[in-house]
Amino acid sequence: MLKRTHSCGELTAEHLGREVVLNGWVNAYRDFGGVVFIDLRDRAGLTQVVFEPEAGTQLQEAAQSLRNEWVIGVRGTVRRRLPGKENPKLQTGEIELQATELEVFNATQTPPFEIDGEANEELRLKYRFLDLRRPEMHRIVEIRHRLAQTMRRTMTELGFWEVETPILGRSTPEGARDFLVPSRIHPGHFYALPQSPQLYKQLLMVAGMDRYFQIARCFRDEDLRANRQPEFTQLDIEMSFVQFEDVLATMEGLVKALSREFTGEELSTPLPRLDYHEAMERFGTDRPDLRFGMELIDLGDLAAQTEFKVFKDTIEHGRRVRGICAPGAAEKYSRKDLDALTSFAGDYGAKGLVWLKVEAEQFTGPTAKFLSPEVQAAFRERFGAKPGDLLLIVADTKDVTSAALSALRHRLGRELKLYDPKSFHYSWVVRFPLFSWDAEEGRYVAEHHPFTMPLPEDLHLLESEPLKVRAQAYDLVINGEEAAGGTIRCHDPAIQSTIFRHLGLSPEEAEEKFGFLLSALRFGAPPHGGIAFGLDRMVMLYAGLDNIRDVIPFPKTAKGTDLMTGAPGTVEEKQLRELHIRQR
Amino acid sequence: MLKRTHSCGELTAEHLGREVVLNGWVNAYRDFGGVVFIDLRDRAGLTQVVFEPEAGTQLQEAAQSLRNEWVIGVRGTVRRRLPGKENPKLQTGEIELQATELEVFNATQTPPFEIDGEANEELRLKYRFLDLRRPEMHRIVEIRHRLAQTMRRTMTELGFWEVETPILGRSTPEGARDFLVPSRIHPGHFYALPQSPQLYKQLLMVAGMDRYFQIARCFRDEDLRANRQPEFTQLDIEMSFVQFEDVLATMEGLVKALSREFTGEELSTPLPRLDYHEAMERFGTDRPDLRFGMELIDLGDLAAQTEFKVFKDTIEHGRRVRGICAPGAAEKYSRKDLDALTSFAGDYGAKGLVWLKVEAEQFTGPTAKFLSPEVQAAFRERFGAKPGDLLLIVADTKDVTSAALSALRHRLGRELKLYDPKSFHYSWVVRFPLFSWDAEEGRYVAEHHPFTMPLPEDLHLLESEPLKVRAQAYDLVINGEEAAGGTIRCHDPAIQSTIFRHLGLSPEEAEEKFGFLLSALRFGAPPHGGIAFGLDRMVMLYAGLDNIRDVIPFPKTAKGTDLMTGAPGTVEEKQLRELHIRQR
Repeated sequence: MLKRTHSCGELTAEHLGREVVLNGWVNAYRDFGGVVFIDLRDRAGLTQVVFEPEAGTQLQEAAQSLRNEWVIGVRGTVRRRLPGKENPKLQTGEIELQATELEVFNATQTPPFEIDGEANEELRLKYRFLDLRRPEMHRIVEIRHRLAQTMRRTMTELGFWEVETPILGRSTPEGARDFLVPSRIHPGHFYALPQSPQLYKQLLMVAGMDRYFQIARCFRDEDLRANRQPEFTQLDIEMSFVQFEDVLATMEGLVKALSREFTGEELSTPLPRLDYHEAMERFGTDRPDLRFGMELIDLGDLAAQTEFKVFKDTIEHGRRVRGICAPGAAEKYSRKDLDALTSFAGDYGAKGLVWLKVEAEQFTGPTAKFLSPEVQAAFRERFGAKPGDLLLIVADTKDVTSAALSALRHRLGRELKLYDPKSFHYSWVVRFPLFSWDAEEGRYVAEHHPFTMPLPEDLHLLESEPLKVRAQAYDLVINGEEAAGGTIRCHDPAIQSTIFRHLGLSPEEAEEKFGFLLSALRFGAPPHGGIAFGLDRMVMLYAGLDNIRDVIPFPKTAKGTDLMTGAPGTVEEKQLRELHIRQR
Repeated sequence: MLKRTHSCGELTAEHLGREVVLNGWVNAYRDFGGVVFIDLRDRAGLTQVVFEPEAGTQLQEAAQSLRNEWVIGVRGTVRRRLPGKENPKLQTGEIELQATELEVFNATQTPPFEIDGEANEELRLKYRFLDLRRPEMHRIVEIRHRLAQTMRRTMTELGFWEVETPILGRSTPEGARDFLVPSRIHPGHFYALPQSPQLYKQLLMVAGMDRYFQIARCFRDEDLRANRQPEFTQLDIEMSFVQFEDVLATMEGLVKALSREFTGEELSTPLPRLDYHEAMERFGTDRPDLRFGMELIDLGDLAAQTEFKVFKDTIEHGRRVRGICAPGAAEKYSRKDLDALTSFAGDYGAKGLVWLKVEAEQFTGPTAKFLSPEVQAAFRERFGAKPGDLLLIVADTKDVTSAALSALRHRLGRELKLYDPKSFHYSWVVRFPLFSWDAEEGRYVAEHHPFTMPLPEDLHLLESEPLKVRAQAYDLVINGEEAAGGTIRCHDPAIQSTIFRHLGLSPEEAEEKFGFLLSALRFGAPPHGGIAFGLDRMVMLYAGLDNIRDVIPFPKTAKGTDLMTGAPGTVEEKQLRELHIRQR
């Protein structure tokens, strides 16, 4: 075997005159009157190889039989490319290999699509092993590798132990739908694949493991929306003898290491912290993109004073009038664009969108005439608006104004290039509500999970006004994406029973549903809390991608199918019989 | 919250006079006439804490209410223990903490067993979160953590990328029994949990990923023998453009790093290599413990010359007479012990065990009289036996003599303390047969897996004498355990079809069973090969344990049950309906 001495990405002018061997795939094949040029590709890069007639007929004929994607080994001498033929985009662009020997490892069948050409996603997923040959896919796989290693190295430095928890677990009554695995040994019994290692990590704290982490596979049998996969990966973390601030401070150590690795930027900590309520008020979302301003402005008091019926009615019904000011956007958005924005806001429930273009003296726009000069001046001041700005205002419930305006803010921020898309902004959103009210079921539901500890200063409200109680919960937000989320856990049996009561669970029901975790908590749980990072989403962020299938080497379609292997597939009747199940 | 300033394992005379806070579990409670002593325990160790009446009634009463396994925080001053009260076994044994403040985080229920006391394994597994509190379990979890991190760090340094492969895969027709996961979206279809990432890692090589690794969870629904778990972990590795020697040399880099981490020993490489046939001949096993000699000696030619009928008949039937010489064992093994060894050999199929004690002039033992002085002298010379040695001889088929004598060798090596049980010996066993013959099914079966490449020098035998063909296969053996195994894969379609034909697969059947891997191999597979390390077994080796349940934080019983969670459990009828299955 002609075994490589170098990779296809490392030869430079330093190696001139050296005899080397390269291994790789034929990336491009060109025959210029008997002189055969190929680009040879491996994980590390491309190198140009030249087969000249002078090297002998046999070699020449072999070279002429080569085709794209054949796997070969080539021996040759490194020489400088002809003047003007250099390729500054390539690491190896100064040189080429003058071939003296060729070995074909694999005469590849013609691939169903050109590796770096166009092809629909279905075909690419069916031949994923070819799609993964693209240098872009190698780049993503390497980012994922570096992310995982940086996480593990940093967690180890921070004194955490990686602990493996079972994949074959028990079905839990709460949460999303479980994937089930029929037991052969125990007829009628099933394992369930874990939705997260939540239970086990709390048990590890009860076991005194103190600081646990795991890059863990999680499973949810839910209908797949865009950017959801039935199996996904999270960096799962739990620590003992900590309070709220300790978890945040420890995790900032990890975030700093990630920033250093991926952007070279030395983050200053503590990272900004936004209260959930403040985030909802200023940005309309609990995961605001803080790379730009354009905050939501409340106009309630001013709206009540106008003659504009929509505004007045909204305020009279106790609802909200809020808006954003898009800097310099007045000229950039045509009437048609503004109709599109109105329809976009409608997707988030807004029945209308008031737009006002700020001119030197006055506002223009269909609603401007309802606003007196005094109100216009007050709006202008409230927004800090300058001529050329565009005001977008929604009058509706708090939830609708939040949803519509945060979506508009996000869209306009991008369209107006208010931030560098390669920049990163990290912040915490903290103190989420402990409960929300499920009107349909007529009961409280846990916002995070039922074992979350309330904020100490809100404990006096737990009995009387549970919706006002804030949780010791925190999300890490990067560029408007929830990158991680967690809570301090409840290790106090009395508080825990009150929470269960609000959730509509009798002590007996709670025992039935969460039996051995409750038992474990009574056998000596330390104060503890944790967090989980979505690894797939982190890779998307650092690789600058927005499709989750790009960051998972062997992904599933929205129907949960692996087009390459054909999973899920049919099985033999004998297999079902052994598992004591039959098809319905 | 009284938050710790130090761990319970770090205070020494250096900290005398310092005010510190510790958090942990009450490990031992003693009340000496009003002075309360406790040992406080956390992951890092134990510290003695003293509550003296002088510190006030309230603190004293609180201290007297403490019980074992309560979770507390204690503030106090570090002081030297009274002379004679030091405990040199503890890192903190010189000092104690004079308590000034106490906070009870959790008044623990009385545990069902004493943490470091005796309890049966069933109870320990049911309350695994308590069993895991034992310092020994912490030690094992930490070794597992260090092993995984050392592996990942070294693999990264060697240029490998960690790539995640799916857990929800497709059922494969060969190999062990699959765990199945019914699909909700595709009625009648099932995912299968992977028995190993074999398929995916080969596809990653076709995809040009070059060097892949993963610490991967694998699943086999087999009846559990001792030291088998339904889910287990392996370090899975594959590399491209390599031959046999390249894989071994690269992996020796990893083995050196592991040795350095766990024993501090700098291994010299290349590691010893034993041919499979040589290993079977010299040790009777393909995973010999090379920490001691006591090799199997062939006595066939001498046995044929004796008057002993058993020996003569055996040789006449073309079978083997082989034995081992246990140095200095003659005195140590009584008649009863020798009967036990005979019965032990019987477990491996030996119908008898000839034992001979070597004395200065002659052999003693029931068979000695059948051996002439000349034969005795020849035996003595062949074994290199000295007075006081014990010869153990089995006359049977090659397989039975191998199995029985290797088991005896292993047992006597341990009983006679022929090696330091804390030492490590690493070696390769290489060039396994490509096929074995399955007499029951009347066909060849693959010894490793059907994609293994034959040795080039044996290729000419592939058609005519397949049983003589040796594979490019290698096992890493540590202290008599198979720690890792792998092969160079076949990337040549012609060789592959011959192998399939021997395995009794028509081209159509091969296509049906291995379709997309065969397709992938045709689309440009590089020469590649790999290996997998059993992580659970490696932890057992480095932790000095022989029960796999000790190295898995949340293990299953031999019946596949998790006694803590009750998995596998029953599920709701609605869940089965959604999955389109019903109970048989």
